[in-house]
Amino acid sequence: MKICRRETFNSAHRLFRPEWSDEKNLEVFGKCSYPNYHGHNYALEVWVDGEVNPETGFVIDLKTLKEIIQSEISHRFDHRNLNLDCKEFEGIIPTTENIAIVIWKILRSKIDSKFQIEIHLSETEKNKVVYSGD
Amino acid sequence: MKICRRETFNSAHRLFRPEWSDEKNLEVFGKCSYPNYHGHNYALEVWVDGEVNPETGFVIDLKTLKEIIQSEISHRFDHRNLNLDCKEFEGIIPTTENIAIVIWKILRSKIDSKFQIEIHLSETEKNKVVYSGD
Amino acid sequence: MKICRRETFNSAHRLFRPEWSDEKNLEVFGKCSYPNYHGHNYALEVWVDGEVNPETGFVIDLKTLKEIIQSEISHRFDHRNLNLDCKEFEGIIPTTENIAIVIWKILRSKIDSKFQIEIHLSETEKNKVVYSGD
Amino acid sequence: MKICRRETFNSAHRLFRPEWSDEKNLEVFGKCSYPNYHGHNYALEVWVDGEVNPETGFVIDLKTLKEIIQSEISHRFDHRNLNLDCKEFEGIIPTTENIAIVIWKILRSKIDSKFQIEIHLSETEKNKVVYSGD
Amino acid sequence: MKICRRETFNSAHRLFRPEWSDEKNLEVFGKCSYPNYHGHNYALEVWVDGEVNPETGFVIDLKTLKEIIQSEISHRFDHRNLNLDCKEFEGIIPTTENIAIVIWKILRSKIDSKFQIEIHLSETEKNKVVYSGD
Amino acid sequence: MKICRRETFNSAHRLFRPEWSDEKNLEVFGKCSYPNYHGHNYALEVWVDGEVNPETGFVIDLKTLKEIIQSEISHRFDHRNLNLDCKEFEGIIPTTENIAIVIWKILRSKIDSKFQIEIHLSETEKNKVVYSGD
Repeated sequence: MKICRRETFNSAHRLFRPEWSDEKNLEVFGKCSYPNYHGHNYALEVWVDGEVNPETGFVIDLKTLKEIIQSEISHRFDHRNLNLDCKEFEGIIPTTENIAIVIWKILRSKIDSKFQIEIHLSETEKNKVVYSGD
Repeated sequence: MKICRRETFNSAHRLFRPEWSDEKNLEVFGKCSYPNYHGHNYALEVWVDGEVNPETGFVIDLKTLKEIIQSEISHRFDHRNLNLDCKEFEGIIPTTENIAIVIWKILRSKIDSKFQIEIHLSETEKNKVVYSGD
Repeated sequence: MKICRRETFNSAHRLFRPEWSDEKNLEVFGKCSYPNYHGHNYALEVWVDGEVNPETGFVIDLKTLKEIIQSEISHRFDHRNLNLDCKEFEGIIPTTENIAIVIWKILRSKIDSKFQIEIHLSETEKNKVVYSGD
Repeated sequence: MKICRRETFNSAHRLFRPEWSDEKNLEVFGKCSYPNYHGHNYALEVWVDGEVNPETGFVIDLKTLKEIIQSEISHRFDHRNLNLDCKEFEGIIPTTENIAIVIWKILRSKIDSKFQIEIHLSETEKNKVVYSGD
Repeated sequence: MKICRRETFNSAHRLFRPEWSDEKNLEVFGKCSYPNYHGHNYALEVWVDGEVNPETGFVIDLKTLKEIIQSEISHRFDHRNLNLDCKEFEGIIPTTENIAIVIWKILRSKIDSKFQIEIHLSETEKNKVVYSGD
Repeated sequence: MKICRRETFNSAHRLFRPEWSDEKNLEVFGKCSYPNYHGHNYALEVWVDGEVNPETGFVIDLKTLKEIIQSEISHRFDHRNLNLDCKEFEGIIPTTENIAIVIWKILRSKIDSKFQIEIHLSETEKNKVVYSGD
């Protein structure tokens, strides 16, 4: 049984590699490399896979899951610049893929290891990633 | 090849265990345990996994699938109180997880066993479960 | 300039007139009159119409508007039975129309009268009302 | 890591087998067999499964993926009659299942074989298929 | 008080004027003029504006409204070719604007004239019209 | 008859008044005033109100409207920092209200004055404004 909780956060970011020239960055990352940042409404679904507890009928208490996601992810990244404000992205280009990996790692250390977890993250109405760990 | 049909139903429910005190129920189930019930617009996707029939180009006739879902699930639970009106939930706390299991069991007995089936059930815009059988 | 804030709440209700027979109630209200209640995920948009404040660029501070809607409406009605738990519906059949009127009256007394307000309330994906006052 | 890009196209189609009588077609395909065609807004998600490139933080460049989907699929089928205009459906009944298979085959030959691909195709708000190859 | 009911229908159509050349049609209507038709999932909202009946709490019985919309509009146009199958469009180019006018006229004759009615019709996720009569 | 076209753009912004202290900015604008910007997926609907042209069945050619919106608005603001990159916001705090006014003014000068125009702009799933001119 898999269960998910959805939360959103709004952040600025920019895709670029500091060791590359501006031309190379523009060639690889297109307008996502523009120097003054742009931003997105990220929509995050955290999926938790486990057994149903016969006493409560819950896989996991969604109130607890919501509080973990909010304190660890959405309150941390909401209204922030992922490149400048968030040490979690030091040395990491904040592509949707990499944001999903960062979120997975943070939550993996906060959610009981008896549960498998999967991150669904959409950057726009047209782009989405799914990451379920290495 | 997997194919799904989406249907909705609107029901009242309440989460509580009769052998627990009101305080314990409130502690575990929060406002979902309030005594006079609340309700949701449940959105159900029934996914059927099988081979494409080369004659029709269908995995399963969606008209038939729709009729099964409506007669067995949505007409049965729509505008009903899951705790009081539905014998399927006698002794079962109607969490989203348990509702998905009940739906899976009903449909499993009505849909040809050559198909695998998977239940996607959302309770609100923020909560969803997936159940594919035991 | 009109601006809106969206909030949701999940409630149980039932449509019936106590002075009518069960048959008459069933005839008029259909399955919405079933005795043990059913429920919905109500989605509420509160639209506020006014001038843009040249200092802030805001018609109204959305944080303030959100707090008013949550304390006055969504926290009051969420996970409640509108017929049994909410004195605001004493003697009032909780149709979507009447819920919108009740919400409009509560908010009208809490939001500065220099603003016009309009209530958009959806009961399901298929039904919606708009009420802008008498 | 899986990543998707969503595109849409609007086409006409009709379900029928030429070697069957009109009665048999109507019996099997219902109103989808009406002779003068009807149509849909198809929503396509192409999911690509692969490793994250450590240099770019991308599984695949979404700009490239978008261009492949548009040139190979959406520009080809948009505003077309799948039965009459598209040689890809010669001898193939354009059910949602078969359209997904045709799309998968076209994209499989255009996307690097180191990636697995999965097609999610919705025909209406209520019907959707997923195909990940044979 | 305004209330709406949403229904959908899936049709084929083509935009062209028979007295114009193919070149002129292509120039004015673009790919919407392609000869073999294309199609859409039309989403229709019928808004009814009137007083709340103090006995029922309804502006209009939504069950009745639904039945009118289904019998007069969605069952009539669903899975049909608007140009070839529907006499309502004889001599009328089935643009979204004109479809909304046709729907408005049909419903105006079926819904009590004490109500104002407004048609909201979307052809795709990106295009929508509103028509409230002449 | 009103018709709309929807487009989206993704931008970074920050709400603050340079003549105010950081404390005052934080008090008035909350986390929207954080110094390193955040961002949104803006969804824009441009509504055009006018007569239906009897020759074409169009109020306005949506292809033309799309091109105006893209060249004048979405290509201009997409992947940009509204505060730093866009001279249209010099001296203007980029609240949703003010962005809608700026868009209205740009489009008002590009769309034939026989049409009334109305801007619907959403910043998140919860916040939206409507502006129809002064």
